[in-house]
Amino acid sequence: MLEKLKEEVFAAHMELSARGLVVFTWGNVSGIDRRSGLVAIKPSGVGYDDMKVSDIVLVDLNGRAVEGEMRPSADTPAHLELYKGFPAVGAVVHTHSRWAMAFAQAGREIPPYGTPHADYFYGPIPCTREITDAEIRGEGDCEKTIGRLIVERFLGVRAKVDPIDVPAALVRHVGPFAWGKDPREALRNAAVLEEIAMTAWHTQALSPAATPMPRTLLDRHYLRRHGVDAYYGQNPGEEL
Amino acid sequence: MLEKLKEEVFAAHMELSARGLVVFTWGNVSGIDRRSGLVAIKPSGVGYDDMKVSDIVLVDLNGRAVEGEMRPSADTPAHLELYKGFPAVGAVVHTHSRWAMAFAQAGREIPPYGTPHADYFYGPIPCTREITDAEIRGEGDCEKTIGRLIVERFLGVRAKVDPIDVPAALVRHVGPFAWGKDPREALRNAAVLEEIAMTAWHTQALSPAATPMPRTLLDRHYLRRHGVDAYYGQNPGEEL
Amino acid sequence: MLEKLKEEVFAAHMELSARGLVVFTWGNVSGIDRRSGLVAIKPSGVGYDDMKVSDIVLVDLNGRAVEGEMRPSADTPAHLELYKGFPAVGAVVHTHSRWAMAFAQAGREIPPYGTPHADYFYGPIPCTREITDAEIRGEGDCEKTIGRLIVERFLGVRAKVDPIDVPAALVRHVGPFAWGKDPREALRNAAVLEEIAMTAWHTQALSPAATPMPRTLLDRHYLRRHGVDAYYGQNPGEEL
Amino acid sequence: MLEKLKEEVFAAHMELSARGLVVFTWGNVSGIDRRSGLVAIKPSGVGYDDMKVSDIVLVDLNGRAVEGEMRPSADTPAHLELYKGFPAVGAVVHTHSRWAMAFAQAGREIPPYGTPHADYFYGPIPCTREITDAEIRGEGDCEKTIGRLIVERFLGVRAKVDPIDVPAALVRHVGPFAWGKDPREALRNAAVLEEIAMTAWHTQALSPAATPMPRTLLDRHYLRRHGVDAYYGQNPGEEL
Repeated sequence: MLEKLKEEVFAAHMELSARGLVVFTWGNVSGIDRRSGLVAIKPSGVGYDDMKVSDIVLVDLNGRAVEGEMRPSADTPAHLELYKGFPAVGAVVHTHSRWAMAFAQAGREIPPYGTPHADYFYGPIPCTREITDAEIRGEGDCEKTIGRLIVERFLGVRAKVDPIDVPAALVRHVGPFAWGKDPREALRNAAVLEEIAMTAWHTQALSPAATPMPRTLLDRHYLRRHGVDAYYGQNPGEEL
Repeated sequence: MLEKLKEEVFAAHMELSARGLVVFTWGNVSGIDRRSGLVAIKPSGVGYDDMKVSDIVLVDLNGRAVEGEMRPSADTPAHLELYKGFPAVGAVVHTHSRWAMAFAQAGREIPPYGTPHADYFYGPIPCTREITDAEIRGEGDCEKTIGRLIVERFLGVRAKVDPIDVPAALVRHVGPFAWGKDPREALRNAAVLEEIAMTAWHTQALSPAATPMPRTLLDRHYLRRHGVDAYYGQNPGEEL
Repeated sequence: MLEKLKEEVFAAHMELSARGLVVFTWGNVSGIDRRSGLVAIKPSGVGYDDMKVSDIVLVDLNGRAVEGEMRPSADTPAHLELYKGFPAVGAVVHTHSRWAMAFAQAGREIPPYGTPHADYFYGPIPCTREITDAEIRGEGDCEKTIGRLIVERFLGVRAKVDPIDVPAALVRHVGPFAWGKDPREALRNAAVLEEIAMTAWHTQALSPAATPMPRTLLDRHYLRRHGVDAYYGQNPGEEL
Repeated sequence: MLEKLKEEVFAAHMELSARGLVVFTWGNVSGIDRRSGLVAIKPSGVGYDDMKVSDIVLVDLNGRAVEGEMRPSADTPAHLELYKGFPAVGAVVHTHSRWAMAFAQAGREIPPYGTPHADYFYGPIPCTREITDAEIRGEGDCEKTIGRLIVERFLGVRAKVDPIDVPAALVRHVGPFAWGKDPREALRNAAVLEEIAMTAWHTQALSPAATPMPRTLLDRHYLRRHGVDAYYGQNPGEEL
């Protein structure tokens, strides 16, 4: 069932490892088939070298196993909250990639300092608030709360961010999540996030007073790829 | 004698090198057979590329050579103190891995800033006090004192830490030690230690006021792998 | 047409990737044939692994496509401004290489701290001023303005710098450009720039009060390679 | 003539490159045959990939070419000053390795923060004073002065350091030099220098108040390898 989706999810795990975004089993990718509402996701605790396409687990949006011999990733509830909260999202990547992790652990957003940031993310990469003791104790489901913190940070009344314009977030003390229309795009966004986190870190250390790029330049760069007048690439406006 | 243990100790040395935890001969692994009280350990000053399984040396808990042509690692007395002080430990890894080294040289513990830390270490990675001039001069055995400093830091009255819950320590000016139930787990802990040291370093530099993760979140993450209600992996509660 | 130039431009893209100066498609190289006024440049949005020599696009100095099936790099107008402003330049490289990017994002020039800098760049690597909102909105061509900012920074009345003596610049929020007499030399300068940016970054972090090298030492090192009395290499004064 | 020495010098250049201590042609190694007073050294401006054993140049202690088709390294006069000033030295390595370079550019010595430092260097790695304008202008030989600055820093009345106990130095704005009894040992010292520079840099950044290791611990570690009572390695006191 959903063999193509499982292959895409599997391939994204291989690229996670090849791009140096993970060590051990510290990262997982999922993809959703919106028609059936089924999610393909990494099995829990399995190494990337040992994983096979057939190990990818299928669960429904309530987290019930639908296909697969293995237990799904312990982070599955976080992925599911994102699919429920962000209906246009087709795939989710969660890692503990190093530079993004430093921002997540410090509880800091990543400001848009340069055009590579603006080419993929239309504004700062938000960092969620800290999870509360009550949320950890009360829920019985820490991972679900982690997904909800992201949705709250994007769609809550205080700070509305469009998850399509800014397809990534940092969860305080936990690490980065990125998403996209399919596993390949979500993986690409996770990799770009790590790259811009690396240069943002060094920009702040070099100059604590460094300012983000002007809004007009951010607009210009984001829209040259994503707007109706996009002019980047061989088929402007299509996937990059 | 104890061929399987020697092979495990040998394999862990190969992985030390493959994971970039050592340069030159700056790292050693040992494993103990608790029944016989014999310890298998790296020969002194031998490069990882040149080492063979048969070069692994067997010594007893008093440091007397039992089998092997070569002299054991000069750090052997430190390993032996850990086996004597921590009866549940089956293997020890000592390196000078770069990020952990920065904390050891600065005399700083590594606070638990994120969930990857909490998945393996149930609290800060302690750093020992400085060795005293009297201890260096008086002992005749600097390496033995190094092992004792760790045991004191964990089991001393001032700051009790369970060495099973926190299977690693930094020795001031010397570097990291990690341990586990067998050489593979000890190596894994040494590698995780280096990874969390790297992100902790960058977290502190980004935000000197960064706070550790809340205790409840630390509990939750450590216990999802190690507690009686563990739910991570394919066989929760087993080795990861 | 201009097959040799296209091959040189293609080869420089391969080296961009091999030297770790780019990720994704974040870098482009061009070369000019001064006789015909034609410029060979990367096609937009194409990955380095997929690129063929025949994909290299030829445009004239007004940006009109002359040969090639594909759209030229979106950064083409910036390259063209450099060819128009700096008549002695034969090739241009634009990247977002990490360490140079940190300086560009912080809006800081790179001071000449050591002899490797002085061997290739006869003074600080300048950083342009910020692009204004009016320039972004009014122009209709953000990339053209980026090229103009560099030319202004070198040839403007306020700060004259010879682009042959200092064959690189940082554009604020955008990243580094480097140039040379041909694609190979431009690429070499882009790679040296990244290397000196890395050590300059760490020099400033180690010692915020660090001072550039004395002018006499800068003279001595630059001129041992580039002056009339050059004595470095097997054919002093020739390409290095 | 001196084929074995030339092969050792050649092999050390290959290792320079393999260990990531150099980019481009930014490093050179020499070795001396004390009987004949002849020095084997890298040809100027030749890449490591293109170099052959037969390209290694022989010069006498006055810098006169004795054998070889190519011009010797432009840094030859610095090497010769070290051979003249330090009669027990058999080989010299000069690089611009990244972490040592940050200290050299900041004009800072590298304090002994940890036991890996103490295993090879019996005290801080000194940094020379800045070269004066008069020295650059008056001499006609900047590279010779660079060598003299090191000898002055070790043997001058103000700060006596034994070049056998501390086989490396930083030249301000120029970079690191390391030495040893033969090219292999000199190369090993250059590589250790880079490693300890990396961790020292991060130690200082983590804790500006970090203190060097106690003198007794430094003694203990240096002497376990180099003293009359050495006990490290399979043949204590021999080369490591």
